[in-house]
Amino acid sequence: MLGNFIYYNPTKLYFGTEVEKNLSDALKNFGKRVLLVYGGGSIKNNGIYDTVTKVLKETDKEIIELSGVMPNPTLTKLLEGIKVAKDNDVDLILAVGGGSTIDYSKGVAAGAWYDGNAWENFWVKQNEPAADQKVIPVGSVLTLAGTGSEMNGGSVITDEEHKLKLGKVFGERLIPKFAILNPEYTFSLPQNQMVAGIFDIMSHLMEQYFSGDDDSTTDYIIEGIMRSVIASSRVAVKDPHNYEARSNIMWCATWALNTLLKMGKKGDWMVHMIAHTIGAFTHATHGMALSAISGAYYRFIMKFGQHRFARFAKVVWEIPSDGKTESELAIAGIEALENWIKEIGAASNVSTLGVTSDMIDEIAEATILGGGYKQITIDDIKEILKNSLK
Amino acid sequence: MLGNFIYYNPTKLYFGTEVEKNLSDALKNFGKRVLLVYGGGSIKNNGIYDTVTKVLKETDKEIIELSGVMPNPTLTKLLEGIKVAKDNDVDLILAVGGGSTIDYSKGVAAGAWYDGNAWENFWVKQNEPAADQKVIPVGSVLTLAGTGSEMNGGSVITDEEHKLKLGKVFGERLIPKFAILNPEYTFSLPQNQMVAGIFDIMSHLMEQYFSGDDDSTTDYIIEGIMRSVIASSRVAVKDPHNYEARSNIMWCATWALNTLLKMGKKGDWMVHMIAHTIGAFTHATHGMALSAISGAYYRFIMKFGQHRFARFAKVVWEIPSDGKTESELAIAGIEALENWIKEIGAASNVSTLGVTSDMIDEIAEATILGGGYKQITIDDIKEILKNSLK
Repeated sequence: MLGNFIYYNPTKLYFGTEVEKNLSDALKNFGKRVLLVYGGGSIKNNGIYDTVTKVLKETDKEIIELSGVMPNPTLTKLLEGIKVAKDNDVDLILAVGGGSTIDYSKGVAAGAWYDGNAWENFWVKQNEPAADQKVIPVGSVLTLAGTGSEMNGGSVITDEEHKLKLGKVFGERLIPKFAILNPEYTFSLPQNQMVAGIFDIMSHLMEQYFSGDDDSTTDYIIEGIMRSVIASSRVAVKDPHNYEARSNIMWCATWALNTLLKMGKKGDWMVHMIAHTIGAFTHATHGMALSAISGAYYRFIMKFGQHRFARFAKVVWEIPSDGKTESELAIAGIEALENWIKEIGAASNVSTLGVTSDMIDEIAEATILGGGYKQITIDDIKEILKNSLK
Repeated sequence: MLGNFIYYNPTKLYFGTEVEKNLSDALKNFGKRVLLVYGGGSIKNNGIYDTVTKVLKETDKEIIELSGVMPNPTLTKLLEGIKVAKDNDVDLILAVGGGSTIDYSKGVAAGAWYDGNAWENFWVKQNEPAADQKVIPVGSVLTLAGTGSEMNGGSVITDEEHKLKLGKVFGERLIPKFAILNPEYTFSLPQNQMVAGIFDIMSHLMEQYFSGDDDSTTDYIIEGIMRSVIASSRVAVKDPHNYEARSNIMWCATWALNTLLKMGKKGDWMVHMIAHTIGAFTHATHGMALSAISGAYYRFIMKFGQHRFARFAKVVWEIPSDGKTESELAIAGIEALENWIKEIGAASNVSTLGVTSDMIDEIAEATILGGGYKQITIDDIKEILKNSLK
């Protein structure tokens, strides 16, 4: 816990099956005009749309609908939402969906009352809304566990024309005011979406864990949540309607990226950075892009943070250290990770996502550089991507 | 994570050494009249009083002082504080101290504008302040890590005349608005106070962990925080000025009891209940009363939750399970706990706290009953206390 930091996260989390009661309670604190944001319409088939609109009507809200938010929300779609929110002067944005829908809703919330180019200001220049700029409150009904967007300020938007996928982490004004978390709402997801979400959680945990080598409470909490995700994933892939497993996964997702686990940590977000570029080039599912490169990425940086990788093997994967050198133990941990990726059915190479060897240079050059145990170069990314091909 | 629950905790935590900057920022959100609450005056010797009053003056606050809050805050003292807060119509209560000072401040904050007997209403009848009753916001500058009072609604007050020590867990209106957490502020504590705080943390973790036998993310997080407390305690008892260890301990204390770790859990708070009664009879330091009975308590209930105790041994204490029966492993875990209690210098029996065998019946009969794996009776408490004598 070395270092100075501020932790503040006022999202009210309503967890469990009592959605109508919870949503009704949450809506009390907001005005009449609600922008209902959702994706491709699956919520109309599984009954979630009906439940949400029923509660909105019962609580006397006026509904303005904004649908068609895509898995990697685009700049064009963002501009459409900004116009709708402003034209209708909405009091609350209610995102019903997964991370893309919530990320998008934050973008609309920040941009609606900004006079100027919101993309340029918030995503390219990474500014915050000025203190005197109005920001629309956001709440969510979550249907997919993974991104953690329900309890943080993150918002990833893709400029499709320039193949630029940029994340912005907004400050406290844009952290959602509430989230309705019903594990049953994730039951109807296709298996590959569930698995992608599970790997997204694991990646958030690893990207915070694999940095630093001090003795920090944060790392011990991360290890606990990793162990829980792994245990529950093994149940959920065989029995997707297992409430206990799906509820653990949902709770892990929220806590993996709500800023608690970055307290006192530097982090190494290169797996997300490379996966974002892969996403911009191929429209690959985010979690699958992460899993496809993680084995190669961690093998590449392992020697720069070997001690932590050995701890990962021992604590998270329960690999006995007897007789192994630290390096052997560290490699065994990454092998356990790679085996788990295959076991749960996540992508284990980028070829299956549509990445070909002739795309590697372009993807590497378009990736935002960073690192943790090692500062990553464009050449490093090329090597990692080559090692991620089938 | 079975079960429905709501998590909401808006305390802003300012962690680290930049106290002046942090306190100045935190005070911006509150009015001019600040009730400065503290204990016996040690903050005047270690410079903390000077720092806090300097910031209060710089931010143009009017200071009303209320000192002399004792380790187990009394009803008489509570009534004094309620009068001072009301007479001065304060805008904020700033508690500078440990759990007793913060617990006390919440009591004053709830009681100041309650027309009637605050003790009877909040502690005896366990009511909440009515929605239209004014409640004074509380903030804190923490000088002792252990109770977690800085990020929860808990407030323990002792009716000294009737030897009645009662806890009240207030709802969200009385959760502190902010907490200034500087690990260095805990450096000047006497060693036994530090150790008592460490055991209080461990007890909060165990009292939530030893209930249920489902697969819950909460238990995995608890295990992580237990491992961190144990590791840091071993450094801190030898080197109390080790910033890394003390900062981990401070962070663990906050998260051990800020409601996160009760999500989806029933809990078993009997160790606290028995320790509260011991405290009312002997004025023993809270954390020492907890450690003095924990070995005997957990040995007593072990057979009713053996599977969880075996997991405790394996995950938290890293005891190899090879060749052991579940029962042997479970006992080995409790032995490890008992050894650690001695290792860090916490009380390992109640005799050293002034409890004698002729007090046992009276203590047992005054204890509020509850339980987890086993519903505890008065006779059970007598047996546990007998086993806790030297």
